[in-house]
Amino acid sequence: MSKTDIHGIIGYTVTPFGAHGEGLDLPALGRSIDRMIDSGVHAIAPLGSTGEGAYLSDAEWDQVAEFSIRHVAKRVPTIVSVSDLTTAKAVRRARFAEAHGADVVMVLPASYWKLSEAEILAHYRAIGDSIGVPIMLYNNPATSGTDMSVELILRIVNGVENVTMVKESTGDIQRMHKLQLLGEGRVPFYNGCNPLALEAFAAGARGWCTAAPNLIAPLNLDLYAATLAGDLAKARELFYRQLPLLDFILKGGLPATIKAGLRETGLEAGDPRLPVFPLSEAGRTQLKALLKLLR
Amino acid sequence: MSKTDIHGIIGYTVTPFGAHGEGLDLPALGRSIDRMIDSGVHAIAPLGSTGEGAYLSDAEWDQVAEFSIRHVAKRVPTIVSVSDLTTAKAVRRARFAEAHGADVVMVLPASYWKLSEAEILAHYRAIGDSIGVPIMLYNNPATSGTDMSVELILRIVNGVENVTMVKESTGDIQRMHKLQLLGEGRVPFYNGCNPLALEAFAAGARGWCTAAPNLIAPLNLDLYAATLAGDLAKARELFYRQLPLLDFILKGGLPATIKAGLRETGLEAGDPRLPVFPLSEAGRTQLKALLKLLR
Amino acid sequence: MSKTDIHGIIGYTVTPFGAHGEGLDLPALGRSIDRMIDSGVHAIAPLGSTGEGAYLSDAEWDQVAEFSIRHVAKRVPTIVSVSDLTTAKAVRRARFAEAHGADVVMVLPASYWKLSEAEILAHYRAIGDSIGVPIMLYNNPATSGTDMSVELILRIVNGVENVTMVKESTGDIQRMHKLQLLGEGRVPFYNGCNPLALEAFAAGARGWCTAAPNLIAPLNLDLYAATLAGDLAKARELFYRQLPLLDFILKGGLPATIKAGLRETGLEAGDPRLPVFPLSEAGRTQLKALLKLLR
Amino acid sequence: MSKTDIHGIIGYTVTPFGAHGEGLDLPALGRSIDRMIDSGVHAIAPLGSTGEGAYLSDAEWDQVAEFSIRHVAKRVPTIVSVSDLTTAKAVRRARFAEAHGADVVMVLPASYWKLSEAEILAHYRAIGDSIGVPIMLYNNPATSGTDMSVELILRIVNGVENVTMVKESTGDIQRMHKLQLLGEGRVPFYNGCNPLALEAFAAGARGWCTAAPNLIAPLNLDLYAATLAGDLAKARELFYRQLPLLDFILKGGLPATIKAGLRETGLEAGDPRLPVFPLSEAGRTQLKALLKLLR
Repeated sequence: MSKTDIHGIIGYTVTPFGAHGEGLDLPALGRSIDRMIDSGVHAIAPLGSTGEGAYLSDAEWDQVAEFSIRHVAKRVPTIVSVSDLTTAKAVRRARFAEAHGADVVMVLPASYWKLSEAEILAHYRAIGDSIGVPIMLYNNPATSGTDMSVELILRIVNGVENVTMVKESTGDIQRMHKLQLLGEGRVPFYNGCNPLALEAFAAGARGWCTAAPNLIAPLNLDLYAATLAGDLAKARELFYRQLPLLDFILKGGLPATIKAGLRETGLEAGDPRLPVFPLSEAGRTQLKALLKLLR
Repeated sequence: MSKTDIHGIIGYTVTPFGAHGEGLDLPALGRSIDRMIDSGVHAIAPLGSTGEGAYLSDAEWDQVAEFSIRHVAKRVPTIVSVSDLTTAKAVRRARFAEAHGADVVMVLPASYWKLSEAEILAHYRAIGDSIGVPIMLYNNPATSGTDMSVELILRIVNGVENVTMVKESTGDIQRMHKLQLLGEGRVPFYNGCNPLALEAFAAGARGWCTAAPNLIAPLNLDLYAATLAGDLAKARELFYRQLPLLDFILKGGLPATIKAGLRETGLEAGDPRLPVFPLSEAGRTQLKALLKLLR
Repeated sequence: MSKTDIHGIIGYTVTPFGAHGEGLDLPALGRSIDRMIDSGVHAIAPLGSTGEGAYLSDAEWDQVAEFSIRHVAKRVPTIVSVSDLTTAKAVRRARFAEAHGADVVMVLPASYWKLSEAEILAHYRAIGDSIGVPIMLYNNPATSGTDMSVELILRIVNGVENVTMVKESTGDIQRMHKLQLLGEGRVPFYNGCNPLALEAFAAGARGWCTAAPNLIAPLNLDLYAATLAGDLAKARELFYRQLPLLDFILKGGLPATIKAGLRETGLEAGDPRLPVFPLSEAGRTQLKALLKLLR
Repeated sequence: MSKTDIHGIIGYTVTPFGAHGEGLDLPALGRSIDRMIDSGVHAIAPLGSTGEGAYLSDAEWDQVAEFSIRHVAKRVPTIVSVSDLTTAKAVRRARFAEAHGADVVMVLPASYWKLSEAEILAHYRAIGDSIGVPIMLYNNPATSGTDMSVELILRIVNGVENVTMVKESTGDIQRMHKLQLLGEGRVPFYNGCNPLALEAFAAGARGWCTAAPNLIAPLNLDLYAATLAGDLAKARELFYRQLPLLDFILKGGLPATIKAGLRETGLEAGDPRLPVFPLSEAGRTQLKALLKLLR
């Protein structure tokens, strides 16, 4: 697996449910995956925040993981989020994902209790020791309640062999600067904060982890291409064009807004699971207007 | 159930595990319940934060709930925490708890995604509509990621008939003041922040939700009695005496410190589940010294 | 000065201005001082936050300090706030206050640049070395931008001989607990957060630094007396009665609300200095209603 | 004055003092101004944070303002910071600066009391009405204690004719995005956060307000030129090269680090005023090493 080069636009999938949030709609998931790959995204990431991974039963989680990997079928790399509250369950998921062909697993140190640095390191080590594929460490204090300092992140990267990538979602660009300087440019980092897309690429991010390509993949891809080409003026123009939509999907909650957007663009993927509401009528009107501007 | 009067010292139980955090040790749970009831606590609360409720499988959760209620056997009221990420699962747990004899259920709006006020209200309404026993609303942004304003709390209390009590764990005494003033003294509130015990009682809290009685029930009960009797000087003296231990169990993490303390006092309850570590050697030495001072 | 015992209700004065915030109205200041002393407050504190000390020219500051001390005339102790951005100016003010008879000076580490602990300690030492009267250290990060930890506060108390009292205005009762425990009960602390008055006394505060006695001295004094007598029920009742007014003066800004209240009760003290606005029409109506309820 | 085009590298001056922080050393100030102008900076800004404006007496402030403007002598525009706690004093300073030839005045809503939006707007209006030169609004909650939302900033820009530029120093790039989107690209914004220099230019900032050109003007200017030329790779390389120094001067406090750096590069500018310490021995060693790497 050491050859996997993760870069560019990493598209996050939703998890389509049936009526009343019951059951899985795997065919719809397949369609959303195809749409993103056909648009040109560089990797597919199921079961992340957007995929409502935390709201699935264990059986559902397994089904979605297995189906997604099989459906992507190595057209691009698949990055499976395997976060769980206990180390034992996260290990089980990581092994399951690897056994079914995941190229990379992503690990957020989800927790109910505040974890010490030693506990976080041991959590990553236990998962790392149980699989052979690379791990993308994921820092997102807003959802996990745990903010890993850059120093801790580098300690984990240096201490656990297959933790080789970092996804940073604090939205604080200084974290990326510090990763770059303290990591001496050798730790590839990825941006997980949509409204930071332009600046993260400016600062050297290898990729952008985002659910936006479900709706506006060409704009996301063009922004990446412009920064790769070093065309700052074009990148800035592309960024400000898509920013209102990026802000909208972030503030409205990714599962609700992306599912509403998919419906709007002809791909029925159901509603989020309660307590999360589907997008309101007013929200749908606003989303429609934003999408229309970008077509 | 309308006659249930919840007040005083509400003792939170741990969930004892077997070796390596596997399996449940229900006899040990029974012993810890007996110990607290024999000491005089006014209610028992299983499956809260201290009980590592978030770290249990569904089957384990059911076992602990059923066992705890049966073991308490109405000697005092039992308050079962039924929080879950999805509304559907929280409803299932609430019904299960009621069916097995819980006197009260406690609900924390746990969430991965930031919930809107309407989503939180609907979550409480769905649970309230599905059961007949009273609900204690629980606000603890540090663990749930959701901070409910006093205005929202009162909207829920007024809008969902069986939400009749509020457990406040922000540690900000002004929240209790506001509950008292805006609630016009009609909404009983309970303190969930150990180092605020003295001031919460001074401000009019009806009870103190705490894991401390696993270790120092007499001191907790005496503090409550002193405030009931209006003896401020004695209450202050009792509070400062137990404060170092209260600070210690909070900062060290309740499952780790309380399980270590139970072991120290002759009741083996196993270790917390990973990624949470058992108390360190240094921590155990400190805990031993603190407990010795209080005996 | 070692015999000065500061305790109870410490009344903060406003600084009355002429029309358009120009000039000082010292006779009005004298009347406000007399009113508080006649009501029974235990000390008078000019030139604090309420006194708009930061908005005065050096000449005005000197006039107010000199006048206040002379007018109090040792009926009760006078505590003069001598904070300034530079150490040199704070030293000058401290000497001026002492030379004119101040019993205590109060020092807030006001700053534009974030100060290190060593810089804060040196600032207190420079002031302490230049005068003989006791110093009350004042911690109020909301106005000074500098939050002193309890450990730092105790380091200053232990390192600068005449820093003998601590005024805590973070509003976090845990700071007082820590002062009590780490200070081994030997460092008298005073509460500067109005809506924490009940709990601060419960936790052992020696006094309450407040502008409220300009308007409701009897209620403030009764609350103090009830806590001294250990009558918790009465203290709680008195506290909740005055709490809406305490909340109001804090949220509305002390100079604006207290000056409006003085006017309402027949003592014209002018308006605050711009950019601070006088209390709005709506605010005055609300204040009138709150005061009426308490008469 | 409507023709003044402020852009590029805006160099902040220190205020050199004599021994023990007493007196002004205007010749040294002149030398530091010449050095920056000779290096090619696009504007000079005296009396800002770096210039310890808050620590000067009124007479000293006047001297520094007058001397700076005269010494710059229109070689580049001069931007004078005229912040003060009271509106009356800020107006006086603004008039003084204009009368002596300032091209722009910069206004930070410094305050002791938390200001309402209406109070902040009135403060800017009063200053705007009293002068004819353009005003750069300055948002820096870390030093002023007041965080102006983008909506408020635009309300001020739209409501006060000569507030035509915005300096943003929160360090949050999203503020600039919002200024760009809500301001419809018509409000020029300037970055005041050194470690955000690359991304602020990427996001469209017109200029960078910084004290760094006292020490490394060529690197600052090259970074600006690279972003103007749209050469992202070169800009990134230049940014990461100077970032350790930018981080250092920010964390060490600008007056202390810049004055130490000036001394190191042969321009004696004295020490900061107490309570601010001069740079420590260890800090000087680190600064020397950082500067050596960049030469």
